[in-house]
This record gives sequence, structure tokens and C-alpha cells, in this order.
Amino acid sequence: MNKRILLVEDNPSDIELTKRALEKSRLGSQLIVKEDGEEALKFLFEECGIDGADDYPALILLDLKLPVVDGMEVLRQVKSDDRTKRIPIVVLTTSSEEDDIDNSYDLGANAYIRKPVDNDRFIVAINYLGLFWLMINEPSYRY
Amino acid sequence: MNKRILLVEDNPSDIELTKRALEKSRLGSQLIVKEDGEEALKFLFEECGIDGADDYPALILLDLKLPVVDGMEVLRQVKSDDRTKRIPIVVLTTSSEEDDIDNSYDLGANAYIRKPVDNDRFIVAINYLGLFWLMINEPSYRY
Repeated sequence: MNKRILLVEDNPSDIELTKRALEKSRLGSQLIVKEDGEEALKFLFEECGIDGADDYPALILLDLKLPVVDGMEVLRQVKSDDRTKRIPIVVLTTSSEEDDIDNSYDLGANAYIRKPVDNDRFIVAINYLGLFWLMINEPSYRY
Repeated sequence: MNKRILLVEDNPSDIELTKRALEKSRLGSQLIVKEDGEEALKFLFEECGIDGADDYPALILLDLKLPVVDGMEVLRQVKSDDRTKRIPIVVLTTSSEEDDIDNSYDLGANAYIRKPVDNDRFIVAINYLGLFWLMINEPSYRY
């Protein structure tokens, strides 16, 4: 079972917290971290899905405010490419602006999470997220 | 907080099991059941969102094999209408056919669950589903 999660996030403390939360949830997931949007796109379109290369991740956790290429553009490109459009993307961001939520859904985000400020609640959110997307959701057979 | 769930399902034992699972998970959700696709569309487009009428549900659980109008057509209509396209839809079905999974994602399903045959596992799946979609996911402000 593919349990690789691509985390696209530039905030070191959020990366660390997500790592800790996933370890704690014992889902056996493997976290790949890309710290800007360009690196994430390069990983997905140049390093994954090629014979003998990496598999696509089972899930993408995507921050919106990213250096170089922002999260909305990553979302747009991943969800409009036949190779990657069915990979579930959960937006994970500090923004609760109405436009960010609606634009994310309109570009094809599967879910949207406002990062809890409290660390314990952040860990609970990542735990529930992992349980649903890695244990319950049925991905496309392609990935 | 809006915790109304629309369940579109014609199998009486699956309806009963979903009800029991949601009661057990103590999420305070309210379940609305429509037993065919036409009834579901009528509810969403004629009974919800009108001044003084019902709110849109926070989540739709959608079986694919339905009488009158099938689940794929419900998915297509809900996800292509500006009034309803951002309501999360989780497909909940016995089918694990590759085409059903891929077509569901391509029509905009947010997630896809193959109904566990075992009742206890069905209840666990509904529980995790409820926790993620009603407690963690951030819906569009419109609903």
C-alpha cells in the first residue's frame, strides 16, 4: 500500500509538527518534504511516474503561501494534468480567507484545512486527516 | 455549525448502518436520507438554499447505484452547478471498479470509499469520515 505523503511547506516548525503528528499516528506513512512550489512540481513531473523512478505520492498536503511558485499554482497544475489530477490534495494553510477556500475548491482541492494554532490541535487534525486519507479513502488505481 | 449530512442511498441496511455509525460517533450530525438520485437533486436544487428554506448540507454521502437517476449523474449535476459545487461529496459504494473510481474523481468527487462488507469496519469508516469532514475540513463559507 502506497503511503507516501508529499508535504509542500516552507515553515520549519509546521514541517516538524506534521512529521511528529504522522509518527504519532502510526500510519506507517513516509513523508517527502518540498519547501517551495517549484521543487514540488519538479518532483511530481520530473521524478515521479517514470519507469524505475519514484511512485506518485498517495496524498499531497499543500500550503498556499510558498516561495518561488505559490500553492494555488501548484494546485492548478497538478489538478489539470492527466498524470496527477486524481492524487488527493489537502490544502493545509493558515489562511481562512473566503477567497482562498473557494478558489482552492474550484481548482480541485479535495479538502481544505486551516492549520490550528494550538500544537495539540494541529496534531489531532493531522491524525484524523491521515486516518481518513490513508486508511479509508480509495485512491485511483493509477497511483 | 452546520452538521447536516445528505445520504443518497437506497439500500435499507446501509442506511441503518450509516445512521447507527453517526450516532455512535457523537458528532451531533443530522442525517437526511434520499433514496434515489432524483429525490436527492430535487432536495438540493428545489428545497435548499432558498430564503427561509433549508440550508445546504455540509456533506453529501453518495451511493453510485441508485434508482431513477444514478449516482454519477447526481455527482455531475451537483459539481457543475455554482450553487452546490463546493459541497464535499464522498462517494460511498460497493463498487471497486477502476472506472467508477476514476470517473468519480474526474467528475469532482472529493473522496471515494468502498463500503466495507464487515459491519464493524463500516462503522469505523463512517466514524473516521465524520471526524475528518465535519471536524477538520473547512467548508466554503457559503454553506
